[in-house]
Amino acid sequence: MTINLGIIGAGRIGRLHANTLTTRVPGARVLAVADVFEAAAKSAAADFGIPDFSTDPSELMRSGDIDAIVICSSTDTHCRFIIEAARAGKQIFCEKPIAFDLVEIDDALAAVDSAGVQLQIGFNRRFDANHARLKRAIEGGEIGDAHTMMIISRDPAPPPIDYIKVSGGLMMDMMIHDFDMCRFLLGEVVEIFAFGDVKVDSAIGEAGDIDTAKVMLRFENGVFGTIENSRQAVYGYDQRVEVFGSKGAASTGNWHANAVTISDAASVRRDLPLHFFVERYLESYVAEMRAFVEALSTGETVPVVGNDGRAPVLMALAGMRSMRENRPVGLDEVAP
Amino acid sequence: MTINLGIIGAGRIGRLHANTLTTRVPGARVLAVADVFEAAAKSAAADFGIPDFSTDPSELMRSGDIDAIVICSSTDTHCRFIIEAARAGKQIFCEKPIAFDLVEIDDALAAVDSAGVQLQIGFNRRFDANHARLKRAIEGGEIGDAHTMMIISRDPAPPPIDYIKVSGGLMMDMMIHDFDMCRFLLGEVVEIFAFGDVKVDSAIGEAGDIDTAKVMLRFENGVFGTIENSRQAVYGYDQRVEVFGSKGAASTGNWHANAVTISDAASVRRDLPLHFFVERYLESYVAEMRAFVEALSTGETVPVVGNDGRAPVLMALAGMRSMRENRPVGLDEVAP
Amino acid sequence: MTINLGIIGAGRIGRLHANTLTTRVPGARVLAVADVFEAAAKSAAADFGIPDFSTDPSELMRSGDIDAIVICSSTDTHCRFIIEAARAGKQIFCEKPIAFDLVEIDDALAAVDSAGVQLQIGFNRRFDANHARLKRAIEGGEIGDAHTMMIISRDPAPPPIDYIKVSGGLMMDMMIHDFDMCRFLLGEVVEIFAFGDVKVDSAIGEAGDIDTAKVMLRFENGVFGTIENSRQAVYGYDQRVEVFGSKGAASTGNWHANAVTISDAASVRRDLPLHFFVERYLESYVAEMRAFVEALSTGETVPVVGNDGRAPVLMALAGMRSMRENRPVGLDEVAP
Amino acid sequence: MTINLGIIGAGRIGRLHANTLTTRVPGARVLAVADVFEAAAKSAAADFGIPDFSTDPSELMRSGDIDAIVICSSTDTHCRFIIEAARAGKQIFCEKPIAFDLVEIDDALAAVDSAGVQLQIGFNRRFDANHARLKRAIEGGEIGDAHTMMIISRDPAPPPIDYIKVSGGLMMDMMIHDFDMCRFLLGEVVEIFAFGDVKVDSAIGEAGDIDTAKVMLRFENGVFGTIENSRQAVYGYDQRVEVFGSKGAASTGNWHANAVTISDAASVRRDLPLHFFVERYLESYVAEMRAFVEALSTGETVPVVGNDGRAPVLMALAGMRSMRENRPVGLDEVAP
Repeated sequence: MTINLGIIGAGRIGRLHANTLTTRVPGARVLAVADVFEAAAKSAAADFGIPDFSTDPSELMRSGDIDAIVICSSTDTHCRFIIEAARAGKQIFCEKPIAFDLVEIDDALAAVDSAGVQLQIGFNRRFDANHARLKRAIEGGEIGDAHTMMIISRDPAPPPIDYIKVSGGLMMDMMIHDFDMCRFLLGEVVEIFAFGDVKVDSAIGEAGDIDTAKVMLRFENGVFGTIENSRQAVYGYDQRVEVFGSKGAASTGNWHANAVTISDAASVRRDLPLHFFVERYLESYVAEMRAFVEALSTGETVPVVGNDGRAPVLMALAGMRSMRENRPVGLDEVAP
Repeated sequence: MTINLGIIGAGRIGRLHANTLTTRVPGARVLAVADVFEAAAKSAAADFGIPDFSTDPSELMRSGDIDAIVICSSTDTHCRFIIEAARAGKQIFCEKPIAFDLVEIDDALAAVDSAGVQLQIGFNRRFDANHARLKRAIEGGEIGDAHTMMIISRDPAPPPIDYIKVSGGLMMDMMIHDFDMCRFLLGEVVEIFAFGDVKVDSAIGEAGDIDTAKVMLRFENGVFGTIENSRQAVYGYDQRVEVFGSKGAASTGNWHANAVTISDAASVRRDLPLHFFVERYLESYVAEMRAFVEALSTGETVPVVGNDGRAPVLMALAGMRSMRENRPVGLDEVAP
Repeated sequence: MTINLGIIGAGRIGRLHANTLTTRVPGARVLAVADVFEAAAKSAAADFGIPDFSTDPSELMRSGDIDAIVICSSTDTHCRFIIEAARAGKQIFCEKPIAFDLVEIDDALAAVDSAGVQLQIGFNRRFDANHARLKRAIEGGEIGDAHTMMIISRDPAPPPIDYIKVSGGLMMDMMIHDFDMCRFLLGEVVEIFAFGDVKVDSAIGEAGDIDTAKVMLRFENGVFGTIENSRQAVYGYDQRVEVFGSKGAASTGNWHANAVTISDAASVRRDLPLHFFVERYLESYVAEMRAFVEALSTGETVPVVGNDGRAPVLMALAGMRSMRENRPVGLDEVAP
Repeated sequence: MTINLGIIGAGRIGRLHANTLTTRVPGARVLAVADVFEAAAKSAAADFGIPDFSTDPSELMRSGDIDAIVICSSTDTHCRFIIEAARAGKQIFCEKPIAFDLVEIDDALAAVDSAGVQLQIGFNRRFDANHARLKRAIEGGEIGDAHTMMIISRDPAPPPIDYIKVSGGLMMDMMIHDFDMCRFLLGEVVEIFAFGDVKVDSAIGEAGDIDTAKVMLRFENGVFGTIENSRQAVYGYDQRVEVFGSKGAASTGNWHANAVTISDAASVRRDLPLHFFVERYLESYVAEMRAFVEALSTGETVPVVGNDGRAPVLMALAGMRSMRENRPVGLDEVAP
């Protein structure tokens, strides 16, 4: 069974999904791509052999041929397109975060519910081989009862300041992936304490954001967690998770472009880890889209649902308040 | 510019190339697949969206639309198809080894030369990120003048005995990749000394072959090399190369499906390395076909030429004689 | 120049120092060992070739031949012996922690000051090759300005409950080493937030202590830190530190008894890390005593002074209050 | 029970054993050290607290107090001192190689036999934790039946030319350790094929020696082995062994002074491995002497006996002939 898709947004992530969906996802057919910038829509269509393009996302909603909409536009448009797609009876994939505001999110999720369509949120890291292996270790009892967990997540370089300004802030834009990973691996978090500061680039501070953060989390099941984020690790993308429990520990390492070690008179060294998310997480994007298309084909529930998009936003809100007020904040304090 | 291809042979490696060429090689279009077994040809066409299939390879040769032939049939047919394709003016990609017999090979290479077409040999490991990094280390002077090299190449399990019987033997079928790697990294070899034995499965011995070998090589430039092959490493595909020189050493490691370490009461452990060549070398097959199609598009010379297919066969012949006679054998002794 | 030493306390750590001082510390001569248990004192003397033993520590204080006292008795006796030794004009080495009470500590440090003698505190981990290398990386600018740090410190198994009861609690007994490491590497800490719980053994909880803790620290220089402690890592002693900064990161790994990797049909594995502090930190105990004896010989200041013993106790007090009150606690809040 | 020892030879290795025996070997007492250079004998006595020294080794032989002689003098004197010590009824430890000549060796071993004393040969690497772990893996069945083995053994820098000239050549001086390791792990070798050349320093060639070699070995039990030696690895002492078998592989890695990884904008790197044998194998020298002294105390057979000193010399002779004649040489061809 073929799933016909329309992509909204032909920026970096939209093009990444277009490429994946047109070459590496069995059962997927991309019929159209829409972007308010015509040139972007046109070149994406040309580059990935997509038959149709448009500057009007609503055209995709109206198309009778399109089964599912993939929303890759800017965050402020996500809820609007989710609601529109749901009302048009389309299945939906939406990039993270759904929105920065819980009320907006709840409206969108309600629209999805009433329409009886499915919504998958773009937390691609769940589909990464390392994280999947961690989850198997936890669920398979390899490490016993979890006691603590730790995430280190560092980008190679900060995004442009213009992006920072509309990003919702480090916790909403970057740590949101780590909040999701916490939930994916170990369930719900009830309390958060956060330190944050500007250590990398003062322009980020001037834009009202932070670039370095350490967060402590208390899970519902009693596990203690920490997350560390930095916008700049000069050695490249640093993505590590460790879960420690009564029977042992499971830890991920970074991926490198090659497995070559060079020993010379100065050191024993390897080339840097894979530079950023396109390199590091490419296969997870493929796997996430395969899972989406397969769930639609079989009628199964998609693997990352609406509430999986909502909960990390709640965590980000708690983290931001904790940082402002320098005290641990319960998630119940920020829930609407 | 699009290169139109026809694939001969729809077995394991033919299907692998069909998949790669139809999804991950820009500028490639597969027009037809031929296999003497109709069911194989038909299902390959269906599975990879190839418009046409045939039980007669000559049909592909006659097609005016096809620019290049990809030969993935059994080794005993390689030279025949190379000659036929060359005479038809087609560009050619041929799997390794070209043939077991140097006279046959020389006839085929002569046909390619007279036709003025290109022939690329399927030594995919040259396109692997680890081996490419080794070559950069050597050529970039990171390890100085090479003194020694070492290849360990172990399969996870022996092929079926029926395959063993027509394989040309371990040195022609398996070590041929390592012979090519020697040449790729460090140039021509002048002398070979070989030990070989049956240690894995006595049925392999009964079929007249060996399953374990150690080979010592003297390179033209004075480098000393060793190759070790085993048909069975129970922990999976073991593929390592080390080059040692005046300024240091460069060593490759194995690839694993994940970078997770699990520490428990018994050990600190990782999952096994990638199981076999389809997993381990998948990206190198993609890269090799991209290089082939790109060379045809630009008119450049393909990166692995006819003599690169011939030379390792000579090395295999010298290795086999060395093993029989228990003495070092010069390559000049086995040249026609 | 030979330094003549007397050891007070012939328990596990006293015997360890006796062994080290009598075999591997040039310039050291142990003249006597005292322990309230005669059998312990006697057997230590016999085992390590120490000429004299006593059940009365004061005898060592009175001996005109003894230059320095090494205090390895139980924590509750440390301050008393420090004061007595200082008044007797002896140089002093004292195990950690000095005491659980800041007023007691301040009295002892005042006695040391008035007597004009030296006091070295037994924070042996500063003398470990890994931690020393981290410090060189930081001070040598290899990682630029420090932004964050992380310590994971897990014991292989909890101590006996009887020990737990007099230990001062996890933060005073175990995390105290990590608090010292923070200061050694990155300077003073100004604020601490702590989570703690009983996850390993409920008997520890019944004894009023915790066995698992995560702590977040704000350094005076703005660095964010985390420490994780567990009383039980079933895979052995887990001792890791990572410091991350503007130019890179430096991370220590665990030490293993051998560097052998075994690959079999199930996994690629290593034997467990060195089991506990005697194995893992043996060389650091040697180095710490060499540094003590050398400083006394040359008249230089000993490398870990009285305030280095006091400051981590302050940190432990802040951590314990933070845990009780579930809020970040400034070190100034717990200072006397 | 105390074993009283006399050391002959106060050069580098003699001093190393003196240090070890006087500080870290329970039950050992060094009574005297002899060296034809009085200054060497005197300073060794002073540095290690040895009561007596002499320029005449025979004095040690005549001393009624000395139970065992440790021979650390130059190779050309080994057999003479073994015979003299044996006739004096002393237990004997002798550094490797016993001699370069099999007839001389056989005379010495015969003298040991007639005297009914014990002789331990200084193949310290058998006592290294890595090699001991390999042996346990093999004997414990962790890797099944051995099929192949590989040794890489590279020094950080060549010794002085004057030493090269009296060393017996690379195979007798350096590879002898690897020949012993072969026998220690996998038993007797029956055939050797060798490549050797001068790649590091032409002065070594002018002195009639080689600095780089690759050797292939056939074991009595059918295992195929390779040894690689280089006199100069610029990154330091490279000491690795791998044994591969029907159930898996066991491989040793190098030891480093610390377990710190530094990631910066250029690479992910570690400091170089431990520089040379004094650093790398120090604990093995301690363990070998403990084993010697313990065997003498208990009356057990020492762990490395006379024939263990003889057999590798035979292997070196076969290797040297193989290199000269460029053909595999059976060990039976060089036996007297």
